[in-house]
Amino acid sequence: MTRPTERGRPTIGIDLGGSKCAAVLLDASGALRAEVRVPTPSGADPLLDTLESVSRDLLSRAAAFGDNAEVAGIGVGLPGLVTEAGVLRFGPHLRGVVELPVALELKTRLGLPVRVMNDNRAAAWAEHRVGAGVGVAHMLYVGLGTGIGGGAVSEGVLLGGASGFATEIGHIVVDANGDLCVCGRHGCWELYASGTALGRSARRRAAAGMLDTVLRRHDLALEDLDDLAGEHVTEAAGAGDPDALAVLAEFAQWVALGLANLTMIFDPTMIVLGGGVVEPASLIVGTVAAALPSLLGTGSGHRPIPTVVGAALGPRAGSIGAALLARDL
Amino acid sequence: MTRPTERGRPTIGIDLGGSKCAAVLLDASGALRAEVRVPTPSGADPLLDTLESVSRDLLSRAAAFGDNAEVAGIGVGLPGLVTEAGVLRFGPHLRGVVELPVALELKTRLGLPVRVMNDNRAAAWAEHRVGAGVGVAHMLYVGLGTGIGGGAVSEGVLLGGASGFATEIGHIVVDANGDLCVCGRHGCWELYASGTALGRSARRRAAAGMLDTVLRRHDLALEDLDDLAGEHVTEAAGAGDPDALAVLAEFAQWVALGLANLTMIFDPTMIVLGGGVVEPASLIVGTVAAALPSLLGTGSGHRPIPTVVGAALGPRAGSIGAALLARDL
Repeated sequence: MTRPTERGRPTIGIDLGGSKCAAVLLDASGALRAEVRVPTPSGADPLLDTLESVSRDLLSRAAAFGDNAEVAGIGVGLPGLVTEAGVLRFGPHLRGVVELPVALELKTRLGLPVRVMNDNRAAAWAEHRVGAGVGVAHMLYVGLGTGIGGGAVSEGVLLGGASGFATEIGHIVVDANGDLCVCGRHGCWELYASGTALGRSARRRAAAGMLDTVLRRHDLALEDLDDLAGEHVTEAAGAGDPDALAVLAEFAQWVALGLANLTMIFDPTMIVLGGGVVEPASLIVGTVAAALPSLLGTGSGHRPIPTVVGAALGPRAGSIGAALLARDL
Repeated sequence: MTRPTERGRPTIGIDLGGSKCAAVLLDASGALRAEVRVPTPSGADPLLDTLESVSRDLLSRAAAFGDNAEVAGIGVGLPGLVTEAGVLRFGPHLRGVVELPVALELKTRLGLPVRVMNDNRAAAWAEHRVGAGVGVAHMLYVGLGTGIGGGAVSEGVLLGGASGFATEIGHIVVDANGDLCVCGRHGCWELYASGTALGRSARRRAAAGMLDTVLRRHDLALEDLDDLAGEHVTEAAGAGDPDALAVLAEFAQWVALGLANLTMIFDPTMIVLGGGVVEPASLIVGTVAAALPSLLGTGSGHRPIPTVVGAALGPRAGSIGAALLARDL
């Protein structure tokens, strides 16, 4: 059970993404003291080697802390299904890596306690403990990135499920007759509300003759539409571009629809939106928050509407959360 | 926080439904000693009067217990949004009753501790403590009735959410372009997977010329289709009627789709199916269980598939759960 503890020892947190691996060293007080970013290699062994070398790098920096130099443990967030025992079962963005006993391997190599968990659950814990949701006992974190992931805190406890596979919220079916998802189901939420979905929506609009201001600004021809991404839309919307605002409004409706579902399920007082899409433009947070109440149904007059806020820790949420979870072992 | 406790005192549990009010008296050991069923009246005051008179009836029976006669408290399950403080905010099947402080009123009238909660959450607790899910730390209860409600147990704790409004699972949108729900949203799960939905599907099929064997058996003409209900279909399917089996198979797909969503969210090891629809035919449980694995996506090879079982306590789950929650105050 994941509850806050206070151990006065430094910890290391690693957020392993599909393309990069970001790690932090927190000192005994929980302050960020060092960070490392390296590319994520392909294959199981290079991946373990990277986790080990990044850890050793930060362990050597902790040695300079003097009295409180001994690192208590290492937390690792991974993009996929991670068991409570620290086995990465399956990660859609880590090709060829299945059933990898990350915690056991790393513990053997480093001789330190290791806790491994899903990356979005780690980010949720960070936002709850030191980010936007401090003191909020019922909080939901939703990370809108390549896909959608999340973590739910209920009465101050981070929900894990029986195997550590809880809150795989990107694969909630919201349109049973919708498009095929990579997971094999139809109409998963992340098909409509992830960063990838925003980019796809933008390319569809651009192909239909919209967003030409945006295309011109980035010197993109219609043949280059593959290079048009969600960030271009959020940036242009922030600058007031009407086409971009329209794309964003439709996107926000889908995000809000999923948040309404999650409100029915978890009844949180706060929803923290994170992930790459939210990063560049708090505009998304506002648009989503405005769309949410009408999607909560007629019971909404009686049901409190959760506050929607942007994540406070940005791209460091995953690694900081992993470090905190190593402390809350 | 709802956790099991062991208090050696009798408790009373009341399950107030849209049409009837069922109450039980549990003795100090938790054994069922008496029950009462009365119709549910309309309006706030008659409703409180009924809760009071049913309680007094069972209190008088508890007096016969001798040494352990003193009732520790009263639990009440209500169909709607119920706050942790015991206020019924809104119940779609209790017309005209909003913002009713049930716990406070009943406590004042009876001079006993009163705990009020959503009826399906109470049923979930009963199945977890003394029903099909005993010892299952991560369990989900899904009640398929007029609508769909449920309760989730995570690490042995019944999830409530910030206001007691968690697991309103019937209103998860699964078909964003679907029909309008009474709640004002489109494509809520209960439009496709509740008992009401099964009846609606049967009537649609019957109007299209199917299910004539079922209609004949119940002496229903095409003009009487309003009288065709879900129970007729489950009964006929149990007897092997091919049309009824087809209706049931489609229904089971929708049920399983929602259970797959909930598996992504809660990662339970067991899902307990209860409610009126499941009552007459365990056939539904088997059909749903068979449909679930393929709906869990390609990750399902790595994700454990929850066991799907029928509820053990039948229509008494709500009242027993309320009585247990009065004990676990």
